[in-house]
Amino acid sequence: MPFPLPEPMRVALEQAEAAAQAGEVPVGAVIARRGEVIAAAPNAMRTENDPTAHAEMMALRAAGRALGTSRLDGYDLWVTLEPCAMCAGAIALARIKRLYFAAPDPKGGAVLHGPRLFAQPTCHHAPEIYPGIGEGPAAAMLRIFFKERRSF
Amino acid sequence: MPFPLPEPMRVALEQAEAAAQAGEVPVGAVIARRGEVIAAAPNAMRTENDPTAHAEMMALRAAGRALGTSRLDGYDLWVTLEPCAMCAGAIALARIKRLYFAAPDPKGGAVLHGPRLFAQPTCHHAPEIYPGIGEGPAAAMLRIFFKERRSF
Repeated sequence: MPFPLPEPMRVALEQAEAAAQAGEVPVGAVIARRGEVIAAAPNAMRTENDPTAHAEMMALRAAGRALGTSRLDGYDLWVTLEPCAMCAGAIALARIKRLYFAAPDPKGGAVLHGPRLFAQPTCHHAPEIYPGIGEGPAAAMLRIFFKERRSF
Repeated sequence: MPFPLPEPMRVALEQAEAAAQAGEVPVGAVIARRGEVIAAAPNAMRTENDPTAHAEMMALRAAGRALGTSRLDGYDLWVTLEPCAMCAGAIALARIKRLYFAAPDPKGGAVLHGPRLFAQPTCHHAPEIYPGIGEGPAAAMLRIFFKERRSF
């Protein structure tokens, strides 16, 4: 790879790979501050029997527990896929400073697609948004996963 | 009270009262099927140090655990306040059949206000929506809570 990925996205991709191996849609997320990883989690909806257990949600919960607060001002979220409406809403509630996501999600994404939640007039907190870092490996993992399952 | 509230909304209001007593914004939620309560939870963001711990999310997680699935097809969600974007997104992901909410939330709501998530073209599942049941007591509880804290 000509340019090494930033450490948080590298860890998020490892979490996505772990999700795939557990039979989950391969998405991983990390909470970091100044590049230091505070929490990392895979998508775990089926494993946890939890409709809210997207990787971003699991990472936000883990960071809240680790830091003893529900407000993550100043922290960044790194995730391998564009967040959905649920996760984008949680990112706003947690007051995440910067959102880095790898692959775009035209169908389910709610950041640059669909409701574009952070651009809504009633959105009370919007992170800075950095798409595309790690898109190649993140999208490849999703393509392989869904191809094997013929989901689309 | 001239008309008794349906049992699930009565339980949701009890959960909201419990949230207030714990110093949380008083919102409560219930997952039910044909009027039978499966799971109930209060808003617990501060208590749990969890930015995702709105009442609806806690109730969805509890129901998933109780039923051993992340898909709650056929189940209804009852909540004392109009869901925000995070919770509306989770309701769609869980495939909740009917959403009953008591008080409207013009500032933070994402069902009949703001992004109106279930009406978005990319929304892949929308519940039937029944607003207003229990609005009086639910809104009164929120008014008293915020008045005591002078939050607005």
